[in-house]
Amino acid sequence: MAISVETFFLNPDAQGTLQAQIQEMIAAGILSGRFRAEEKLPSSRKLAAHLGVSRITVTLAYTELVANDYLSARGRSGFFVSETAPVPPTFSPTQRAQETVDWDRTITRRFTGGDTPRKPQDWRSYRYPFIYGQADATLFDHANWRLCALRALGQKDFAAMTGDYFDQDDPLLIEYIARHTLPRRGIIARPEEILITLGAQNALWTVVQLLLEPGRKAAIEDPSYYTLRDQLSHTGCTLDVIGVDSDGLPPEQIAADTDVVFTTPSHQSPTTATMPMARRRALLQRAAAIDAIVVEDDYEFEMSFRAPPSPALKSIDSDGRVIYLGSFSKSLFPGLRLGYLVGSEPFIRQARALRANVLRHPPGHIQRTVAYFLSLGHYDAQIRRMARVLQERREVLEQVIALHGLVPANRNLYGGSSLWMRAADHVDMGQVASGLRTKGVLIEPGAPFFAAQTRQHHFYRLGYSSIASDRIPAGVQHVAESIRAARA
Amino acid sequence: MAISVETFFLNPDAQGTLQAQIQEMIAAGILSGRFRAEEKLPSSRKLAAHLGVSRITVTLAYTELVANDYLSARGRSGFFVSETAPVPPTFSPTQRAQETVDWDRTITRRFTGGDTPRKPQDWRSYRYPFIYGQADATLFDHANWRLCALRALGQKDFAAMTGDYFDQDDPLLIEYIARHTLPRRGIIARPEEILITLGAQNALWTVVQLLLEPGRKAAIEDPSYYTLRDQLSHTGCTLDVIGVDSDGLPPEQIAADTDVVFTTPSHQSPTTATMPMARRRALLQRAAAIDAIVVEDDYEFEMSFRAPPSPALKSIDSDGRVIYLGSFSKSLFPGLRLGYLVGSEPFIRQARALRANVLRHPPGHIQRTVAYFLSLGHYDAQIRRMARVLQERREVLEQVIALHGLVPANRNLYGGSSLWMRAADHVDMGQVASGLRTKGVLIEPGAPFFAAQTRQHHFYRLGYSSIASDRIPAGVQHVAESIRAARA
Repeated sequence: MAISVETFFLNPDAQGTLQAQIQEMIAAGILSGRFRAEEKLPSSRKLAAHLGVSRITVTLAYTELVANDYLSARGRSGFFVSETAPVPPTFSPTQRAQETVDWDRTITRRFTGGDTPRKPQDWRSYRYPFIYGQADATLFDHANWRLCALRALGQKDFAAMTGDYFDQDDPLLIEYIARHTLPRRGIIARPEEILITLGAQNALWTVVQLLLEPGRKAAIEDPSYYTLRDQLSHTGCTLDVIGVDSDGLPPEQIAADTDVVFTTPSHQSPTTATMPMARRRALLQRAAAIDAIVVEDDYEFEMSFRAPPSPALKSIDSDGRVIYLGSFSKSLFPGLRLGYLVGSEPFIRQARALRANVLRHPPGHIQRTVAYFLSLGHYDAQIRRMARVLQERREVLEQVIALHGLVPANRNLYGGSSLWMRAADHVDMGQVASGLRTKGVLIEPGAPFFAAQTRQHHFYRLGYSSIASDRIPAGVQHVAESIRAARA
Repeated sequence: MAISVETFFLNPDAQGTLQAQIQEMIAAGILSGRFRAEEKLPSSRKLAAHLGVSRITVTLAYTELVANDYLSARGRSGFFVSETAPVPPTFSPTQRAQETVDWDRTITRRFTGGDTPRKPQDWRSYRYPFIYGQADATLFDHANWRLCALRALGQKDFAAMTGDYFDQDDPLLIEYIARHTLPRRGIIARPEEILITLGAQNALWTVVQLLLEPGRKAAIEDPSYYTLRDQLSHTGCTLDVIGVDSDGLPPEQIAADTDVVFTTPSHQSPTTATMPMARRRALLQRAAAIDAIVVEDDYEFEMSFRAPPSPALKSIDSDGRVIYLGSFSKSLFPGLRLGYLVGSEPFIRQARALRANVLRHPPGHIQRTVAYFLSLGHYDAQIRRMARVLQERREVLEQVIALHGLVPANRNLYGGSSLWMRAADHVDMGQVASGLRTKGVLIEPGAPFFAAQTRQHHFYRLGYSSIASDRIPAGVQHVAESIRAARA
């Protein structure tokens, strides 16, 4: 039997080349059982005319399907569904299950809810996305990333990168981090003291699992990254929230019975305060006095375009009590999901074992691609390009907020990709943010960053990593108008 | 000052093109502070002669470094380290920390130890690797994988795939799994009932976290996948181990107070027994009678080259109590780290929230690459190619083990990629395996698959997914000789 040409149509919205679309149509027809073994395909001339594509495109698609054993070519007779093409299963799916399980009772721990707000996934469709931590595709060195990915996909690397690493990491990436990245933060570490994680959040999660349990106490900055608060609350540990000032976390307020202190000294998240060196030393002294571990989240240190970054806490840690977290996701793209932990060998050994238990290891090909991107210098070039653009946006943003009388909540001397802002005390920025969405403006209300007991509603964050300079003035004007209206 | 040509040398073992190596050398020199701003690079002619490469290679490397702002070109004067090239930090790393933290006391939970054996990472260097679950690079459709990865790296996909997905998955991949993969196992599922995981092990881990805690009881097959046992023991739940027979898990032995049953019906891991349909139904009836959840690990179902795979347990689950686990890592390559969970919506919702808390989401680019590889039909073609090769190896293996009087521990009717073998009762296959390593032979001792209380030492597994047919006879001969020697 011949397969009718009428069963084929191109989807105008589909991604990929025409040839790929034709291949997909035919493979899908075979896999679903619509096209059966021995059936004849339309001639390439006929199908090409029907779809309005060139004949060579159809021929190439057919040839590829022959190579994959979906089709067989029979000289002048044309192309047929191969005798050994895959067949759909002989059994047919049963009807949908009737749910009889009481999942509320069955599930022991619930991870929905919590403090982490849901951000809009369609943020790209907003005209004024003052959103934080997303990739600006226009700033990314896409061409060189592709080249590095291709190199990592080459025959030579492939065998090494596609195997099961068990609990190991890509040695090239570890070597680069140890020899180039960490020394710039003043840190010396051996490979045994470094672990690759699935992004910075996964690094935080790993630390939380290993160091906290009921009966132990964690101290976090307030406001702080909400997901860290969620992660800690799931352990059942005691949680102290310590209000930050314009220099970040005040060490003298850390209680003597604290086991682990979480801090963001380079630029406090979300207030952007940079901790001065004297306070960094005081923090380490306090930690030593009470024998606490310090977890340093050094996110975004590369974006210090207004002042050189200070040495990391970890670099002045003389007794091995600092665990350091770094990430590539912010400077490359968040979908990358790659970060790292640096700490004492006994700690990293347990972190590695936990990671092996949970997910074995981060995908090898991604590790190798990043290793190439770093070692060829593309990463640094990218950072400098981004810093220049962020600096320009920042200048525009500062001028415009001053013009409209909007108020940054504190000094921000180093740079970064966001401003922490304060409205008048009685303004609920959650409501303002909701209203702004209808005008195509996305801002982040500050409330979720505060712990429940200290929650304040008149703060907000303006991210400028994903909004072009020329959109900033009109966007800020909307923000200013909405805040004025809320005050009235 | 000019940089001497003598500081450059090529590493004959280095990976990557000559141009890439030259770029790396120069970038590394700048980043480490050895080459400073304004210093002059050797002329391309000189450097090319010194390294023994073509001049165009050096010129291309220089040009690329100019684009990345490491170098600047000054017409006829040549190339200089750029004024705005990155500089090393002004502070120098401190001395190594003196460890004063008592990590034994500080770490709350230990993940080292446990039942999971460490496999040799250098297994590729063994002449006779009867190893299981590793990638045979010669069987992988590397060319088409590269093309799919490139397509997923294209401009159009890139913006979509590199953003932060928050807690979502690639819709293309989910759609393919729902419409093509699951129907072949007799399963109908909506996108809300599917979650992508970081490999099958991560899927198991997720289920274990959500369903077990102290006071609950899990039942597992014995022998079974050791890492599952480790994962369960970390929850503090009660663990029943149920000995399998030649049809897999006997349902009548599941205790009435069991909360969750873990099973591998398609082919029991590691014994390879396939559970008959009648027993599958009996297992579901037993689970319904005691209101237990059933976790079905359907690994390697595609490798049923001797008999068509039976419908999955999940496909005959009429009350939504089966949670189904699938994986692409085995059929593509284990370093991929991609699997999926299928279950009732309330369960998947919590699994998604847990995943978001731990790692946000699996990397987007990998999800998209797999989606293309599947939808273009390359995956199925790959499966069929692998099945043909595995079948051939399997025939050789069966002939040779019969020749040497080695004994499979049970019938294996479906195919797969390993044989579960039994030596005489008093032979310790752990010792035999150690001895065989010195002869270049890798086999897996069976003991780690058994729970501590039922551990038996005379079983072993012969994997044939990574050993060429022509190596099998000599390898098996070594195994037979070593077992004979151990018996003597």
